[in-house]
Amino acid sequence: MTPGVDLPDFDSVLAAAERVRRFVRETPVLTHAAIDAAAGARIFVKAECLQVTGSFKMRGATNRLALLTPEQRKTGVVAFSSGNHAQGVARAARLLGLPAVIVMPSDAPQVKIDGVKADGGEIVLYDRNSESREVISARLAAERGAVVVPSYDDQDIIAGQGTAGLEFARQMHAADEPLDALICCTGGGGLISGIALAFERLSPATQIWTAEPEAHDDWARSLEAGHILANAPGTRSICDAILTPEPGKLTFAIGQRLFAGGLRVSDGDVRDAVRQAFRHLKIVAEPGGAAALAAAVHRLPPALKGKRVGVLVTGGNVDAAQFAQILAGSD
Amino acid sequence: MTPGVDLPDFDSVLAAAERVRRFVRETPVLTHAAIDAAAGARIFVKAECLQVTGSFKMRGATNRLALLTPEQRKTGVVAFSSGNHAQGVARAARLLGLPAVIVMPSDAPQVKIDGVKADGGEIVLYDRNSESREVISARLAAERGAVVVPSYDDQDIIAGQGTAGLEFARQMHAADEPLDALICCTGGGGLISGIALAFERLSPATQIWTAEPEAHDDWARSLEAGHILANAPGTRSICDAILTPEPGKLTFAIGQRLFAGGLRVSDGDVRDAVRQAFRHLKIVAEPGGAAALAAAVHRLPPALKGKRVGVLVTGGNVDAAQFAQILAGSD
Repeated sequence: MTPGVDLPDFDSVLAAAERVRRFVRETPVLTHAAIDAAAGARIFVKAECLQVTGSFKMRGATNRLALLTPEQRKTGVVAFSSGNHAQGVARAARLLGLPAVIVMPSDAPQVKIDGVKADGGEIVLYDRNSESREVISARLAAERGAVVVPSYDDQDIIAGQGTAGLEFARQMHAADEPLDALICCTGGGGLISGIALAFERLSPATQIWTAEPEAHDDWARSLEAGHILANAPGTRSICDAILTPEPGKLTFAIGQRLFAGGLRVSDGDVRDAVRQAFRHLKIVAEPGGAAALAAAVHRLPPALKGKRVGVLVTGGNVDAAQFAQILAGSD
Repeated sequence: MTPGVDLPDFDSVLAAAERVRRFVRETPVLTHAAIDAAAGARIFVKAECLQVTGSFKMRGATNRLALLTPEQRKTGVVAFSSGNHAQGVARAARLLGLPAVIVMPSDAPQVKIDGVKADGGEIVLYDRNSESREVISARLAAERGAVVVPSYDDQDIIAGQGTAGLEFARQMHAADEPLDALICCTGGGGLISGIALAFERLSPATQIWTAEPEAHDDWARSLEAGHILANAPGTRSICDAILTPEPGKLTFAIGQRLFAGGLRVSDGDVRDAVRQAFRHLKIVAEPGGAAALAAAVHRLPPALKGKRVGVLVTGGNVDAAQFAQILAGSD
């Protein structure tokens, strides 16, 4: 764990909820009998693709930026991200009235680049294969005196993302349908670890599972090994939003304590989940945002059959051409 | 007006809300700066495509079926519909445990036919060009002693659909953003007339506008003329869900009293609205369900520029191939 950094807890999530309330949407929980039948369980989908900026990332970004000092607000923030965190930070910065520079890979989906531009974020593109976004971000931050806003391994980011879990636990409680398990698309682990903190208090019996591409299963392997393991460089998947190199230090510390395990999905599973979300739920899920639904439908652990399983659809920022291609496919 | 049939009123809508509450979802209100910019107004989209069965029709069908006598429940119901009412009736019938026969045109979108099948509805297909669905339905009802459930011109259907308006008015009140106007996709007028009853009481300053295909502008012309006018036979549009021949008698009586006027959209406007809903709101809108958004973005009356305008996206039951084709287009 980063020395001197405390892990966030349930109270951090509660405080974040108060801070972000004016800026984020309560997203609905959707169900469909055909998805239940495909999964062999009762699936409750929290549609964070309907969140402001098209992903849950707005929650953590807003919480983090709201905590900047008046001094820090003047020089603003730097963030690096393939897209969803970028959009969350750019929007939060605009709403809070501070400057933001976003470092994005040149091959990021156009819809994500456009989203950042629309919020007035300054974009610096880099080549994913030859340049280090960390180095570029650190240089920009030093030049401008700006604060680097990490995309997941940060206590305020984790607490902010956790507000999705707070909502979800309360929604299921109100519906008198407490979840037996919850599956979340996992990259660095900011969202799922925040959610786990909320559920630990509000719904402690709910098992928390990560979902990742099978070629990029750092969380599943790390949880099995009991320490952080990275992905082999150069692994590929259509799930661009969740291709982080390895679990975060803070997020893994939370995960080790609170996660039940990791589920692995193929790109084919993910494409099918995108189609099911389109057809049955009428929502637009990006591939990385559909990994948990793919896991629920195609890779549900036998012990969860027949149970109540919550699923986060975490983002919907997908280019029209790719979405049309997925709809047309059948693999 | 049908002799002996009272018009529904605000209390009918309130009573319907109590009746359907367990069966329908509260749908979210979504916004996006890019849509506001395109419209030149603040647009609030109530996403009824996220409703159970993928359209608002579940509201009215559930209210109507919940009011059947124990006797009537045994022999069940007959409904005719190009798809969304069909699915609403089939689902409501399944949930309430009564048999349903659905008369659908043979060229209805496959996704709608499949939806009815999945709910165990018995389907009778007919040829839109050579057969009368009214005649077929009446015959089936007579043979089975079943009740024909009309798709819009019925006081209990109108009251049920009006529950969407009740929700919308309350959501905007809670957000402290009362609507200056509301635009609703309009076929027979069941939804918009129910909504108008809710807004008349809860938000009387809100103007209520219909939205229809320009080649199928029976509401706009009827409202202008002060009496019901039909469409020329054989008019076409991609908005399959709202191609009714003329305004209903009950719905027009309500509309004459409460509607501000009618807006006309082209198929190109509608395709663009489907793309905007995909790109910015991350929802799946079917063409007929996107007519009001198309009107807001492309045909907003000058007096509504800069105002708060509510829009119903009424359904999302569109085949993947058609949706992909619309995404690929640019007209």
